[in-house]
Amino acid sequence: MKISARNKLDGEIEAVDLGAVMASIKIKVEDPGVLTALITKESAEGLGLKKGDKVSAIIKSTEIIVGKE
Amino acid sequence: MKISARNKLDGEIEAVDLGAVMASIKIKVEDPGVLTALITKESAEGLGLKKGDKVSAIIKSTEIIVGKE
Amino acid sequence: MKISARNKLDGEIEAVDLGAVMASIKIKVEDPGVLTALITKESAEGLGLKKGDKVSAIIKSTEIIVGKE
Amino acid sequence: MKISARNKLDGEIEAVDLGAVMASIKIKVEDPGVLTALITKESAEGLGLKKGDKVSAIIKSTEIIVGKE
Amino acid sequence: MKISARNKLDGEIEAVDLGAVMASIKIKVEDPGVLTALITKESAEGLGLKKGDKVSAIIKSTEIIVGKE
Amino acid sequence: MKISARNKLDGEIEAVDLGAVMASIKIKVEDPGVLTALITKESAEGLGLKKGDKVSAIIKSTEIIVGKE
Repeated sequence: MKISARNKLDGEIEAVDLGAVMASIKIKVEDPGVLTALITKESAEGLGLKKGDKVSAIIKSTEIIVGKE
Repeated sequence: MKISARNKLDGEIEAVDLGAVMASIKIKVEDPGVLTALITKESAEGLGLKKGDKVSAIIKSTEIIVGKE
Repeated sequence: MKISARNKLDGEIEAVDLGAVMASIKIKVEDPGVLTALITKESAEGLGLKKGDKVSAIIKSTEIIVGKE
Repeated sequence: MKISARNKLDGEIEAVDLGAVMASIKIKVEDPGVLTALITKESAEGLGLKKGDKVSAIIKSTEIIVGKE
Repeated sequence: MKISARNKLDGEIEAVDLGAVMASIKIKVEDPGVLTALITKESAEGLGLKKGDKVSAIIKSTEIIVGKE
Repeated sequence: MKISARNKLDGEIEAVDLGAVMASIKIKVEDPGVLTALITKESAEGLGLKKGDKVSAIIKSTEIIVGKE
């Protein structure tokens, strides 16, 4: 399936931290370093996410804020 | 001001496309290529965004979706 | 690719309405009737969305609000 | 009060799962099956959400991603 | 209907600016000044929003970013 | 850094409630009372958020829903 959210950053999972309901997924991407995605624990388990997995961070354009020094 | 949204990707504006109300900002980041941010035209004008500007794409963790092949 | 956003409603496009920057996509789903998705015009064109297409509305859990009478 | 977010799917709560801060609410809707909404525990308790409650899943159009096979 | 998104700021519409697909709604709230809400033109017209209307800005907690000097 | 999300409400932290992964930050603003922001625990700790801190609630326009009685 192709999706309309087309901002996609490839990386590797650095850490998976499970809470009671939420899960924090650290994704190491190229230069910027590390992105944190907050998804449901259920979803993290459903995808079987674990350290070292090759994953993508996908972001809808309406969610991106622009910062300028 | 420091903000709680700490996913930050530095890049350079490749294109600014103004609609009636919204503006699409293409930001060239390191490897992944180009991200598109959708912000208000007013905000794009307020920051004076133009091609070549050094900007950051800032994303709250709850907005990131994880994709896995 | 499997994604962490797993709320998925299948339907058929009823209308595509292009603005300068944004596009409004009406998706007819089973009973509830019609959902409206707002995506970039570029993304709508990239997926070649048109009336009659079978598509899915995908929603991250953090974006759903619960209403109760 | 009428609200501008008009994507509304009626259903019934199938499960309420409380974490320390967040709550996961499973809403059984017509055909698509089950949607998961992530709201604060406080909000879930404020609305008194429990299994069997008739509720609606409400979604702002800018939050919907379109998927196409 | 009561909703789980309980951050609510009452105010008065200062301006409605319609684009092709989107509408920008300026809401004058107490002290902070003016908030801008971006909703679909259709939704703005459906609610009949116009200057002087008493409205509320409603925000889901997951969407709020915290800034600290 | 200036950011494109320009809806900003100044206030004071009333409570910080840490979960395993998420943190709930209550921000007392002028008249409307109290807003709740949900951010990662990591981010709350990174900013050193505590009761009495002067902070701002920052909201992207696409995330605001308009309610009308």
